[in-house]
Amino acid sequence: MSFILITCDGRARRGELETVHGKIQTPVFMNVGTSAAIKGGVSTLDLKNLKCQVELSNTYHLHVRPGEDVIYKLGGIHKFFNWDRPVLTDSGGYQVFSLANLRNISEEGVTFASHFDGARIFMSPEVSMQIQSKLASTIAMAFDECPSSVADRSYIKNSCDRTLRWLIRCMDEMKRLNSLPETINNKQMLFGIGQGGIYEDLRIEHMQRITELDLDGYAIGGLAVGESNQVMYHIIDVIEPFMPKDKPRYLMGVGTPINILECVDRGVDFFDCVMPSRNARHGNVFTSAGQLNIMNEKFKYDSRPIDEECSCEVCSNYSRGYIRHLLKSGEILGMRLSVMHNLYFYNNLMEEIRAAIESGCFSEYKKEKSAVFSQRV
Amino acid sequence: MSFILITCDGRARRGELETVHGKIQTPVFMNVGTSAAIKGGVSTLDLKNLKCQVELSNTYHLHVRPGEDVIYKLGGIHKFFNWDRPVLTDSGGYQVFSLANLRNISEEGVTFASHFDGARIFMSPEVSMQIQSKLASTIAMAFDECPSSVADRSYIKNSCDRTLRWLIRCMDEMKRLNSLPETINNKQMLFGIGQGGIYEDLRIEHMQRITELDLDGYAIGGLAVGESNQVMYHIIDVIEPFMPKDKPRYLMGVGTPINILECVDRGVDFFDCVMPSRNARHGNVFTSAGQLNIMNEKFKYDSRPIDEECSCEVCSNYSRGYIRHLLKSGEILGMRLSVMHNLYFYNNLMEEIRAAIESGCFSEYKKEKSAVFSQRV
Repeated sequence: MSFILITCDGRARRGELETVHGKIQTPVFMNVGTSAAIKGGVSTLDLKNLKCQVELSNTYHLHVRPGEDVIYKLGGIHKFFNWDRPVLTDSGGYQVFSLANLRNISEEGVTFASHFDGARIFMSPEVSMQIQSKLASTIAMAFDECPSSVADRSYIKNSCDRTLRWLIRCMDEMKRLNSLPETINNKQMLFGIGQGGIYEDLRIEHMQRITELDLDGYAIGGLAVGESNQVMYHIIDVIEPFMPKDKPRYLMGVGTPINILECVDRGVDFFDCVMPSRNARHGNVFTSAGQLNIMNEKFKYDSRPIDEECSCEVCSNYSRGYIRHLLKSGEILGMRLSVMHNLYFYNNLMEEIRAAIESGCFSEYKKEKSAVFSQRV
Repeated sequence: MSFILITCDGRARRGELETVHGKIQTPVFMNVGTSAAIKGGVSTLDLKNLKCQVELSNTYHLHVRPGEDVIYKLGGIHKFFNWDRPVLTDSGGYQVFSLANLRNISEEGVTFASHFDGARIFMSPEVSMQIQSKLASTIAMAFDECPSSVADRSYIKNSCDRTLRWLIRCMDEMKRLNSLPETINNKQMLFGIGQGGIYEDLRIEHMQRITELDLDGYAIGGLAVGESNQVMYHIIDVIEPFMPKDKPRYLMGVGTPINILECVDRGVDFFDCVMPSRNARHGNVFTSAGQLNIMNEKFKYDSRPIDEECSCEVCSNYSRGYIRHLLKSGEILGMRLSVMHNLYFYNNLMEEIRAAIESGCFSEYKKEKSAVFSQRV
């Protein structure tokens, strides 16, 4: 299993990651189904029609409900939700530090209260790997600390050091788990996560140190948490030269269509974000002419699809007027159709980005699309 | 357009109703999508995979939101929700008398407050026909009064007389509307509704009087509103001989799978009920071995489909354990999958009923299935 860089266009990369669940064409946007389901009633059968390559689920949420033992006994997450393509599981780290209460961090790990029922939970590099091994995702993420974006420099530095020690423990534990006969996916991959806040030197140092370890991919964590786009782009510019060319690069939790264009342009391969599904549930949909809110009065009698240029199942079958009616009436189908369209929009955008890189015209494509995406219909 | 009685097995009837939107094979169960959408995120594309022949929407709900003018301007309900098979619209009468507040009934019609925003609405036979004509459904229902099931005999008698006078007004108005060039569906059918509470003589008299009028079908209204199954079956036994053999018969708002078997056995052709979708949203699903609640702890590790005998999209792809997890986690997809299964179960039951009547073994089929359907898994 390996990553092949097919071609580059500037810093934009067109790659292919081979996994035990098939090949991933990059740049790719992963579709977020936190609890092994896309919010809004979208099934894995729907996902196949939406050009989704990789589904992303969350270790913390699945640990809380239904518990990794349920998924393990039902044959792993692929059998659990009937999806034969790659799945990436987030390590739970981000949720432990953003959702859970009453945290107590030690060198060993983190003790915290579940946001669901307040139960005390202990999570550590080993525990996160054990859960992810039972889930049997294609790609596991390392368990890291996600310090507050307003934490001071010395806190961030210490946190980076600990995250590095935790990463080594993750690698050791994943190696052990992958060698066990009872493990469902013995070829589970592990991506490390670089941190460092908004401090250039800490970012570079951390990336240098984690890339000395032989991981299957490298993620940039702790961005898109409140800093400006310009700061985010700058941090990526700063650390990109220190990321290995022959490994996939994943910018966690990003972002808008324009963010994705800018970050592909800076050499990023993997993305994920709840934005397309969360926005859709409130009627905010993306189109080839810019964003629109389908609940707007002006779409009441509109017989056109959400996006006249779109060939998704929703745009091929339903009108703005109908979807507006559904959302205004509180019909769940309105959310589902909007989410489906937005996920298709993102997955199709990535397909276009890949084609643009292949044909060496990514910067023209980016310029043209950025102008459109900043508009409202 | 006409109704053909293909064969009978006892009083059970196997028929075919030709409509401007295709043929309906009877007995049939209509799938309820009150506001032009099945609750739980099920689309008309899904309905096609669920063996749904007829979708039922509600005039009162669509009048309140989005308003019949929106649907008319978008080309009628078929274009509105992208469905080319028959649609039956309920007249709004039942909802006016069950949902709306501050009713004032006169010979002319009913003034009431919308349950949605309290706005004053006037509905009459003419108004109901005008709304349904704008919706352009395949089959319109007559606007009737649905008196309380505890109303006394003299109230019911007066109400039946008024409902008959209203029916004649419905017919006149529908005839006028069908002749207008701006009408979307000039072949809209009209079914009359027989009332009479639990009074045998009033039921018979009302049915005799409405069947003197030349309608496209006849419905039995005002049942399944709290009386026992035995009373309901008895009333049907009493009025069935007075219903024309050559017209479709529709028992409104019924019912459980056992109710349907019993009423097919008493000569009913059309059914509708919110039960399969409402039950499903709370995890109550129907199977070939009886009902079960998928949220039960015992299904936590169950890798089997909801129903091992079922070939629906849900049972072909998802396990009890997964659907239980979704419902327990509040994931909308859990509702959607359960609703889809239950609708398929009902539509497939009707297909089996039709086959049993054709092969002359309906009473054996009914006996066998009734024993199973009363069980819990």
